[in-house]
Amino acid sequence: MRREGPIREILSSAPAWLSGGGQDADVVLSSRVRLARNISGFNFVGKSDISERGAVMNLVRKNLAKAGVIAEDDKSTCWLDVSKLDEFSLEALKERQIISRLLAKGHRASGEKAEQDPRAVVVFRPGERVSIMVNEEDHLRMHAVRPGLTLDETLAEISEIDDKVENVLEYAFSPRFGYLTACPTNVGTGIRVSVMLHLPALRILGEIEKVKRAAADMSLALRGFWGEGSDADGDFYQLSNQTTLGKTEELLLSEIQGSIVPRVIEFERKAREKLLNQRREYTEDLVYRSLGILTHARRLSAAEAMSKLSEIRLGHSLGLLQSPDVSTINRLLLLVHPAHLQHAAGRLLNQGERKAARATLMRETIC
Amino acid sequence: MRREGPIREILSSAPAWLSGGGQDADVVLSSRVRLARNISGFNFVGKSDISERGAVMNLVRKNLAKAGVIAEDDKSTCWLDVSKLDEFSLEALKERQIISRLLAKGHRASGEKAEQDPRAVVVFRPGERVSIMVNEEDHLRMHAVRPGLTLDETLAEISEIDDKVENVLEYAFSPRFGYLTACPTNVGTGIRVSVMLHLPALRILGEIEKVKRAAADMSLALRGFWGEGSDADGDFYQLSNQTTLGKTEELLLSEIQGSIVPRVIEFERKAREKLLNQRREYTEDLVYRSLGILTHARRLSAAEAMSKLSEIRLGHSLGLLQSPDVSTINRLLLLVHPAHLQHAAGRLLNQGERKAARATLMRETIC
Repeated sequence: MRREGPIREILSSAPAWLSGGGQDADVVLSSRVRLARNISGFNFVGKSDISERGAVMNLVRKNLAKAGVIAEDDKSTCWLDVSKLDEFSLEALKERQIISRLLAKGHRASGEKAEQDPRAVVVFRPGERVSIMVNEEDHLRMHAVRPGLTLDETLAEISEIDDKVENVLEYAFSPRFGYLTACPTNVGTGIRVSVMLHLPALRILGEIEKVKRAAADMSLALRGFWGEGSDADGDFYQLSNQTTLGKTEELLLSEIQGSIVPRVIEFERKAREKLLNQRREYTEDLVYRSLGILTHARRLSAAEAMSKLSEIRLGHSLGLLQSPDVSTINRLLLLVHPAHLQHAAGRLLNQGERKAARATLMRETIC
Repeated sequence: MRREGPIREILSSAPAWLSGGGQDADVVLSSRVRLARNISGFNFVGKSDISERGAVMNLVRKNLAKAGVIAEDDKSTCWLDVSKLDEFSLEALKERQIISRLLAKGHRASGEKAEQDPRAVVVFRPGERVSIMVNEEDHLRMHAVRPGLTLDETLAEISEIDDKVENVLEYAFSPRFGYLTACPTNVGTGIRVSVMLHLPALRILGEIEKVKRAAADMSLALRGFWGEGSDADGDFYQLSNQTTLGKTEELLLSEIQGSIVPRVIEFERKAREKLLNQRREYTEDLVYRSLGILTHARRLSAAEAMSKLSEIRLGHSLGLLQSPDVSTINRLLLLVHPAHLQHAAGRLLNQGERKAARATLMRETIC
């Protein structure tokens, strides 16, 4: 199922946040900041009808251009009218973490259909660095994401966009509570800060609980990043704040970037050192078996592929193997998912065909 | 632990029965015939003392030469005084199926030590085709073994030797019962006929019970060939008769070679066909994953190595992979065992070192 047009453009390269670069990239895959905003004078999305959501969408599109946030003739800007996308494209955008499940599904008041629900996402700045969902839970959900541990720059980028938008649109704001949002947990700064962590050594040594406790102590959430459930496919965990009220953005950032993330990075690095120094044979065996499976299997589930990729990523960071490089491994973490596989194949694939295509992709990419 | 002398000679090549040749070699690894004989005028081994066993041993050695069965200046004849061998050499000979556990252990009447127990094995004819154990359960246990399904020729070879020995030594024989043996199950012809079968497809499809029932119906035993227990390491099963009384050698052979073995071969080939035609992707995946593990693992247990070798042997017979060839796979089935590994390493290895050496051997041998 090869897409034409903007979706094809998007699917034809890997997002920059999977480049494998940035600070502490051995443990931190990416840093992400999201701001939730609503426009004054309109109902929240969940309370609005189709015509109001349509008005919000048009208003946003016009004003993003007016504010100079997007320039529609810019190649790296892509405005997608979500109600016009097919299932396949929606799936692909979810896999890339450009849209949420909620935006894909749409709002279905009685008598309304998802394909009539006005909602959009705009992806811009090179490498899908910034995206804005319109009419998700809030009128605006603005995201910036970068590789490695770079929350400061990521926040700076999304804040600059936020300021520009605020110049042209009046946000729903209370002097007492701050930015008003559909869900009370977002009221205040409307910020969610998250880092995606790769923690294979802690999982292997059975020490993930340590990270969970440290996160819980600071009221942070630790979730799997990909996949349906809360489990961490391939040892990738998303660490994020759960509430925003009563903390400035700076305090939140310093708690996450200045305190817990460095601790988790240290836990993971110590665990890797332990694997290398005290359980080297075991670890080499684990890493090379994963490489053997990836380069030989004829059928691979997404979960198994993620798990084996995680182990060779660990092997790479321990210096146990040189090839494939981290950016290739990271890219594969995305390409193993169904819509991306089908895009590459140029046709719909059933589950068995996807397993075969996934295995072929691995064999052709990893030598 | 590299051995010098005759043991080294033996360990430096693979026995002919693992060559991968012979009739129906896709399923039948080897055909083996054993004759149990005792010398008239001496107690059975279990009832004898050291001096009597010493006398039997000397008598046998002298008369095998006299009968022209062995010529000690012949390069392919190797007489081994088992009581003089160390643990390591005994282990290596057991792995090659040249001596039994009982012969290695020796007879330990009160006050006697195994290293004083006179017992021997003579290996002769190219490729270890024939061997004779002296003072095992019976005075003589004479074996011939060949690759593939060739019981006729194998029986002919051992019978010719038996006749020559009978010309110079008087066997314990009863006109009513036939050849007399220490264990009543061997009385009569003293023959045990066995074929080693490779039945991976039947195991994969859960149809081994079919073979077990067919064997039980004919009072035949189906056992694992290598390893401690009765389980078939690597899907190799030894099918053999359990009793000898009341059946001529010809009848026994026709039952095994003319009836049950062809049926089992057909079962297995049908199962392989089914795997190829109805579950091809599954089978390819299985075979190539095994190849991936063998060529990438850094630690391998003997059981895992046997099991993966079995699966690539299946893959070879299905035409799913060309390399390694069957003789290489068969040879590895022997070389993965502890004494052979240590012989190759030239030193004693602990269990962890053996796992590493086994994995290295695989990576260096299979490309």
